[in-house]
Amino acid sequence: MENFSEWYSEILEKAEIYDVRYPIKGCGVYLPYGFKIRRYTFDILRRLLEEKGHEEVLFPLLIPEDLLAKEGEHIKGFENEVFWVTHGGKKPLEIKLALRPTSETPIYYMMKLWIKVHKDLPIKIFQIVNTFRYETKHTRPLIRLREIMTFKEAHTAHTTMEEAENQVKEAIEIYREFFNELGIPVIVSRRPEWDKFPGAEYTVAFDTVFPDGRVIQIGTVHNLGQNFSRTFDLEFETLEGGKDYVYQTCYGISDRAIASIIAIHGDEKGLILPPNVAPIQVIIIPLLFKGKKEIVYDKTRKLYSLLKEAGVRVKIDDRDIRPGRKFNDWELRGVPVRIEVGPKDIENKVVTIYRRDTGEKYHVGEDKIMDEILDLLEKIKDNMRKKAKEKIERYITIVDYNADIPIEEIACRVKETLKEKKGIVLIPYSEKVYREDFEEKIEASILGITEYRGEKYITVGRTY
Amino acid sequence: MENFSEWYSEILEKAEIYDVRYPIKGCGVYLPYGFKIRRYTFDILRRLLEEKGHEEVLFPLLIPEDLLAKEGEHIKGFENEVFWVTHGGKKPLEIKLALRPTSETPIYYMMKLWIKVHKDLPIKIFQIVNTFRYETKHTRPLIRLREIMTFKEAHTAHTTMEEAENQVKEAIEIYREFFNELGIPVIVSRRPEWDKFPGAEYTVAFDTVFPDGRVIQIGTVHNLGQNFSRTFDLEFETLEGGKDYVYQTCYGISDRAIASIIAIHGDEKGLILPPNVAPIQVIIIPLLFKGKKEIVYDKTRKLYSLLKEAGVRVKIDDRDIRPGRKFNDWELRGVPVRIEVGPKDIENKVVTIYRRDTGEKYHVGEDKIMDEILDLLEKIKDNMRKKAKEKIERYITIVDYNADIPIEEIACRVKETLKEKKGIVLIPYSEKVYREDFEEKIEASILGITEYRGEKYITVGRTY
Repeated sequence: MENFSEWYSEILEKAEIYDVRYPIKGCGVYLPYGFKIRRYTFDILRRLLEEKGHEEVLFPLLIPEDLLAKEGEHIKGFENEVFWVTHGGKKPLEIKLALRPTSETPIYYMMKLWIKVHKDLPIKIFQIVNTFRYETKHTRPLIRLREIMTFKEAHTAHTTMEEAENQVKEAIEIYREFFNELGIPVIVSRRPEWDKFPGAEYTVAFDTVFPDGRVIQIGTVHNLGQNFSRTFDLEFETLEGGKDYVYQTCYGISDRAIASIIAIHGDEKGLILPPNVAPIQVIIIPLLFKGKKEIVYDKTRKLYSLLKEAGVRVKIDDRDIRPGRKFNDWELRGVPVRIEVGPKDIENKVVTIYRRDTGEKYHVGEDKIMDEILDLLEKIKDNMRKKAKEKIERYITIVDYNADIPIEEIACRVKETLKEKKGIVLIPYSEKVYREDFEEKIEASILGITEYRGEKYITVGRTY
Repeated sequence: MENFSEWYSEILEKAEIYDVRYPIKGCGVYLPYGFKIRRYTFDILRRLLEEKGHEEVLFPLLIPEDLLAKEGEHIKGFENEVFWVTHGGKKPLEIKLALRPTSETPIYYMMKLWIKVHKDLPIKIFQIVNTFRYETKHTRPLIRLREIMTFKEAHTAHTTMEEAENQVKEAIEIYREFFNELGIPVIVSRRPEWDKFPGAEYTVAFDTVFPDGRVIQIGTVHNLGQNFSRTFDLEFETLEGGKDYVYQTCYGISDRAIASIIAIHGDEKGLILPPNVAPIQVIIIPLLFKGKKEIVYDKTRKLYSLLKEAGVRVKIDDRDIRPGRKFNDWELRGVPVRIEVGPKDIENKVVTIYRRDTGEKYHVGEDKIMDEILDLLEKIKDNMRKKAKEKIERYITIVDYNADIPIEEIACRVKETLKEKKGIVLIPYSEKVYREDFEEKIEASILGITEYRGEKYITVGRTY
């Protein structure tokens, strides 16, 4: 697509995903179709978290000022971005209340009440909530919002640093699997010190590349060590009868997961949805000809019942408009499979199948339709993942250098490469490159350190 | 139970439903067990709404001051209860933003953009969100909150008043079915003029009675007529080519649904949960004796797999504590069915079943266990509904009077009856009684007008 930004805005509107016309900057409305994509997407994440023993909870939105300010680094990272509630009715409040920018402070305040001895640990909880950032940068729907409508944040507490380390690994595996399910390719980098989460020991982040070649962070995992537990006095009695502070991790995924599904898989015709998050997986379109309407409707209904019973999300489009318009509508909305039912196919005991991801159209014997569809939905999912991976590979470039080359020249090469190829540039790791001032030289961000095909690289790119 | 209020607080804590110790008045935390009850409960409501063509959406939390103030009656009803955001970061905002107390104004602002002609109607949408009221009254967990954590609000728009009337009827039927599913008995009253929703034509409300004899509103349905549509200029082109404003309804259910499940069904031992919202429907407790552990564990696991596969939410309690303590724990948490597995029962090819709702304990042949459990879960649901209905019937008293009796004497009788019997008093309808000043005379609220066994009554009671 030529102009990604334009395409993206248009598709949000036309596919009825998210309405940006709300009268507050950075706030919008999830429309029914978009809401369903969101629901199926976060249901996958919920399942993955629950399978690994996480339990869902729900914390208040409001955080008293003194509680949010308790951890020094943390508040520094957020103080310019917090929305403050100062009045209740017509009266000023005694203490200002923040709209949560994230929930470390309220959750760890409560953990203090729940943790006494080692047997109370580990705690592994998550919530899916709205969070708020007073963004001064340019906002973008589902990418940079003032009301992040969907923030899945998980928080854990453990008896040892080793356990916390393992939890970080588990979180990374869960997120890998989540993005794998969505067919979204990721590069996982350990963020540099100067770009870690405020209050964390270190941060591991998931990035992907959008069709305009810009890098976007779509998930983060933080090892908090004992930074917060000391502040919030999360002390527990150890197995040996001593005292220690708990070791903590937290990890989050936002509406950007939805933005990525749209951006990564879409094409000129519109959305292409992975079948597991598609609100409609199969659209059936009856092709009506005079005198043959009844047999077509009859066949349509039979197919519908058959697929419905097999658990497929199926819909019949029986609107009184031309089939061509129907085709366009559902292609725009990214429905993975279309079935056309016409009198001639009925005679020949076949149905016509159209695949949104490849554009292929073919016939299948009507007795084989059910197996074909179930099989096809899997195939589409796999093919979409493969295609997306190929696309991102074209956006990954290695810039090599000899050890004795001056840093300015490395920077120059990286900058040129970024200009030409966009996406992510991988630079073999060295201390002299891995410095904050290198970012200025290349006019891009250091994403961090990653392993790529067994080698250690510095990842850089221009980010959202 | 002797002291309902105490019992209620204790059960929220002990059954780990909702933690009130959050440092803001009227705000608390849904704990994992409570969150699951909430999820299953609102999943029922979601299903019922979707079956009737409602679509789920998600609107922003924040409402600009001028938008909230647009409908005069509406803002008057809420202005003393609104939390205001006045600052972003360290800067004052140009316009104050309200935390939604309810979402008529933001939703109807957007409807203006969606509605052009009759073909755009009806619109039937809902969302499940947090809403805020700066309550100055005494707050109570899940009953009167400053952050209402769960508010299901539905909003509809129609081409005629008749359609809106029918929508009100549909909403009432949906809510009836919802509370029926939860086994919560309700009295449905049309609220008096002076107590209708701010901006509505009329309000129909669902009330139930808590064990302390106080009445609580647990659902409302409003016919808004054209009040909001005129304010928000929701004009559409009619089928005949003319212009009209849409006719609207809205209806809501909150966390009070969860409070009601707890309050209505619980007993001295703790919660009793309807099987359809119980996080654990069947708890299996192995009774271990030396030398017989393996066969008991083996049987336990087999039962678990069998029930799990049949879709039952089942759990094994294999903690290393006395069975008696386990029994208490799960009775407290309201698990509908307990299965005990001991060596003697295994020899006799039976299992022991305990029903939480009746306290009955009995044996079942192990080959019949699956049918028995599925059947039992249905039976429990029905029995709980029946019992709850009987309980509320004891809280409904008719106070009759002759037409020529002075109003003061009627008031006196009603007041006495309320004092003695509590709950809801039904007074045969008459204009002289159905006046706002009657409330002072009886020191209770007029709930409205209801039909009870074919007759028209005024309903009164002391409310939460």
